[in-house]
Amino acid sequence: MKGNLLDNINDPKQLRTLRPEQLPQLAAELRRFIIDVVSVKEGHLGASLGVVELTIALHYIFNTPDDQLVWDVGHQAYGHKILTGRKDNFDTNRQLGGISGFPNRRESEYDTFGTGHSSTSISAALGMAIASQLKGDTNKNHIAVIGDASIASGMAFEGLNHAGVTDANLLVILNDNAIGIDPSVGALKHYLTQVKEGKNPPQNNMIKSLNFDYSGPIDGHDLPTLLKELERLKNKKGPRFLHIITTKGKGLRQAEEDQVKYHAPGKFDKITGEVLAIADENLPPKYQDVFGITLVELAKKNNKIIGITPAMPSGSSMKFMMEAFPKRALDVGIAEQHAVTLAAGMATQGMVVYCNIYSTFLQRAYDQVIHDVALQNLPVIFCLDRGGLVGEDGATHHGVFDIAYLNCIPNLIIYAPLNEIALRNILYTAQLGLKHPIAIRYPRGRGENTNWRKPFEVIEIGKAQQLSTGSKVAVLSTGTIGNNVIKALTQIDNADLFSHYDFAFIKPLDEVLLHEIFTKHKEIITIEDGTVIGGFGGSISAFATKHNYILKINTLGIPDTFIEHGTVIQLQHYCGIDVNSLKDIFSGY
Amino acid sequence: MKGNLLDNINDPKQLRTLRPEQLPQLAAELRRFIIDVVSVKEGHLGASLGVVELTIALHYIFNTPDDQLVWDVGHQAYGHKILTGRKDNFDTNRQLGGISGFPNRRESEYDTFGTGHSSTSISAALGMAIASQLKGDTNKNHIAVIGDASIASGMAFEGLNHAGVTDANLLVILNDNAIGIDPSVGALKHYLTQVKEGKNPPQNNMIKSLNFDYSGPIDGHDLPTLLKELERLKNKKGPRFLHIITTKGKGLRQAEEDQVKYHAPGKFDKITGEVLAIADENLPPKYQDVFGITLVELAKKNNKIIGITPAMPSGSSMKFMMEAFPKRALDVGIAEQHAVTLAAGMATQGMVVYCNIYSTFLQRAYDQVIHDVALQNLPVIFCLDRGGLVGEDGATHHGVFDIAYLNCIPNLIIYAPLNEIALRNILYTAQLGLKHPIAIRYPRGRGENTNWRKPFEVIEIGKAQQLSTGSKVAVLSTGTIGNNVIKALTQIDNADLFSHYDFAFIKPLDEVLLHEIFTKHKEIITIEDGTVIGGFGGSISAFATKHNYILKINTLGIPDTFIEHGTVIQLQHYCGIDVNSLKDIFSGY
Repeated sequence: MKGNLLDNINDPKQLRTLRPEQLPQLAAELRRFIIDVVSVKEGHLGASLGVVELTIALHYIFNTPDDQLVWDVGHQAYGHKILTGRKDNFDTNRQLGGISGFPNRRESEYDTFGTGHSSTSISAALGMAIASQLKGDTNKNHIAVIGDASIASGMAFEGLNHAGVTDANLLVILNDNAIGIDPSVGALKHYLTQVKEGKNPPQNNMIKSLNFDYSGPIDGHDLPTLLKELERLKNKKGPRFLHIITTKGKGLRQAEEDQVKYHAPGKFDKITGEVLAIADENLPPKYQDVFGITLVELAKKNNKIIGITPAMPSGSSMKFMMEAFPKRALDVGIAEQHAVTLAAGMATQGMVVYCNIYSTFLQRAYDQVIHDVALQNLPVIFCLDRGGLVGEDGATHHGVFDIAYLNCIPNLIIYAPLNEIALRNILYTAQLGLKHPIAIRYPRGRGENTNWRKPFEVIEIGKAQQLSTGSKVAVLSTGTIGNNVIKALTQIDNADLFSHYDFAFIKPLDEVLLHEIFTKHKEIITIEDGTVIGGFGGSISAFATKHNYILKINTLGIPDTFIEHGTVIQLQHYCGIDVNSLKDIFSGY
Repeated sequence: MKGNLLDNINDPKQLRTLRPEQLPQLAAELRRFIIDVVSVKEGHLGASLGVVELTIALHYIFNTPDDQLVWDVGHQAYGHKILTGRKDNFDTNRQLGGISGFPNRRESEYDTFGTGHSSTSISAALGMAIASQLKGDTNKNHIAVIGDASIASGMAFEGLNHAGVTDANLLVILNDNAIGIDPSVGALKHYLTQVKEGKNPPQNNMIKSLNFDYSGPIDGHDLPTLLKELERLKNKKGPRFLHIITTKGKGLRQAEEDQVKYHAPGKFDKITGEVLAIADENLPPKYQDVFGITLVELAKKNNKIIGITPAMPSGSSMKFMMEAFPKRALDVGIAEQHAVTLAAGMATQGMVVYCNIYSTFLQRAYDQVIHDVALQNLPVIFCLDRGGLVGEDGATHHGVFDIAYLNCIPNLIIYAPLNEIALRNILYTAQLGLKHPIAIRYPRGRGENTNWRKPFEVIEIGKAQQLSTGSKVAVLSTGTIGNNVIKALTQIDNADLFSHYDFAFIKPLDEVLLHEIFTKHKEIITIEDGTVIGGFGGSISAFATKHNYILKINTLGIPDTFIEHGTVIQLQHYCGIDVNSLKDIFSGY
């Protein structure tokens, strides 16, 4: 690449010294830089490739960081990071101690607002804009860049609805590529498609109806047009909305052609673009596939079964059900609140609904779980994917609060399977006519057993299992972290001191067994990959003090701090719940 | 009233035997019945008066309960209850053991979905409609009645966005009266006003853009028009949307003229309509007014202070700030998610934001508290109004989960004041430059002290207070429920056994004092008006087992069940935390 413009840009001030006609070359260099690093270091590829021109144009036209830029979700912010001083450590992206895969206020003054979950950008940027107004700073611009999947989420609508009746200096840029992680869905997407295809009469404009100064759609890869339009919008006031059309994965043929796969493709050949296949026939399955494959098996026999996913058909493996039973598996878009209450409505009609939501995203539907499902005791089956530490996505995405926030809800059963077979059997058991809603919590990634497709067995609700017997200490684990206990116990000399119990049911607790455990042992260790505060261990402590048991209890889990990004094992180690940490703890007895 | 049509209607089947021309008389009788009962028994008046004609028309035209009707929020469902078999016990409305003030599935098959929180109806009815489709029941209708304040909430948009791409038999009826509890706000309201006033070109239609078959606006008090339009819509398929215009409080002059006051006016003269004033000069203030008045005092001296309320300016007393500093106090509508992230955006700019949200409604913004505020450690000040048991609103509205769901969030300070003076002082302290977000939790209703406007004092973060000293049992209370402890201790003979501590800070806990307490006493009682699971008492149990203290701990609070409606004292008694229950417990030592 002649010129190497990117080499000399460590700050948008340097970018702004370039001539407009140099920017297409910079775009090509930036795209190549992203591909080169992500092909080796992994990460989110497609979204950032799609906004290369927009990223350059925004920093070129606006006076960042004084003008404030919020990237919704943040998958698309790699170019932004590279242009704002993080080029040299971009290869540490998503690694322990490295830069975050998402915008992060602690990382750079250019990251005005941390993102990760979708649809927050309009609210955040509007808050900044109103603050600027109150300070009398009437020229400052506040820009939210949001995708068409994210803008369809309720929270974004709330932000637009408020912004439209303010005169705050807010520019919302809709980056319309018709896809989130999976293809966008819903009536708004349909409307936007009509707009793009010129089939919508210009006088019918939803955004104008919300009192925004709307412009577009324009080609988001056409730098001269982008620059001109942003320059024009920079000098206007009040709530403005620019609709740009981009292609996710732009500039890498395979990423444009298979946008779902290349959202976060793992390692790939930076020249050919081919994803480097991992030989995985002999690996245990992903929990996601255990869910997806088992659901299809169950749905074949039980025609009341319905699957719901809010915008994660691929990630959750709900796609298997969508392929097998397209009418009985629904992707409702980034709409967790709607997903849960939709499930509740279906459950009133006797449907058996598997509502699959990532643990961290169920936080978005917390009220609906309480108010629409649990209060009415509707037997919705929540499948909480990505419970526990998720690894490289980091603090915004760890599913570590779920045990605590669900534990206090009456009527709700909470189950964390030890392994694939337990997950499979609880999925089976859940559709046999439970009288209560249930939350089934399992982690991201692969399990323990390649031979997992065993005949179904009914799981008795509320029953814990003893896995090993020892003389002194009872180790009570819940969920797949119990496998760390199993492994640690095989690697120490004093394993005969330890009884190990699998408390897959966090609620209801097996109190009969607990009395036996507290009677037979001298000390208790609890372990979970959720917050220590309010979690499974907390329930065990409460049981102990309620029944006046005088035993020391060591509660292991996620400490009272936000956990950053790194591999799952690194993060487990940080929390003291990896196999090595457990070995150290156990060996100390 | 000639004829007494209402007397003979215990079921919509009987309603359907009337001639259409009899329905206006029935409407008058129904309106009178509601006024007669609510004037004496209290409750939500204005909303139900506004939909009398709609209620009659829906049950007349549709084949309820086979056709399924969901009332959003449910304030407006009194007429529905009276026409569906609950006329004779309508005078037990909102009383302990009586009927619920909201639709409730356990109460009647006509209540197809329990409501209370807003904006759930579209999702729930769509769930029912899709279930009917899957069952092959293609003629069944599913109807969501939703107000213009509720439809502006993000969740409702999510429901519309999904429904628009289905062919489910869903009829959404927008009951547009331009007011929720307080007047509606936002760009959508502005748009609807344009529509009503004929200023919006018909080809510009947001609802049609979302793929709905839109009709209206029509006069929702004109029974012949309503009947005709509903009959027409009954025989259509797919997602339909009817926009009707009504007047909240219709038929009672004062209720039409002062719609905020007559939303839930308390007792009033059923003939004149005048609210029966309660002499309250000598009563302690409402905590809401302590908040509202104190905020204005603080805002006068600190120009960084901003107030945010999602649609509760009157209920929260944010109205005082809105009157005093209209630019610095924002009603963002029923948009808790937006409210929290807006506050976070403002906090990034150094604003001191008091984000006042009812405890039960903060459940709607749980993810935003974690992801946008606490993770970024932005010092937003959450004022959690109506923490604890709220009384007659019942299970949907009790603010009893907040301690548990907030306790697990890192960086967050949680404070529950003992009384008005403590509330006032923590509001003062919170704006002195806290380094963390804080949640200040206080109850609905009146406090303890008429003389509460004392000079401000700084509260030391994390410090608990000893209120009385005894020889055996330490009673640890958090929040205003501590006043029950104070009262109970004055009414027993063995009060010298009890030390009483006010742990206003649920987090961080005063561990120094806790060590002292556990060392000096033989037993511990904790008390809170939040869930026992995961609450303050749980933190004390965890402290005890962590530090190996061998004391019996009796954890009092809300048991693991949903608490129904009744007076606060009745419900406290049910939970064993009223003064009398505490006296009994204490006397047993």
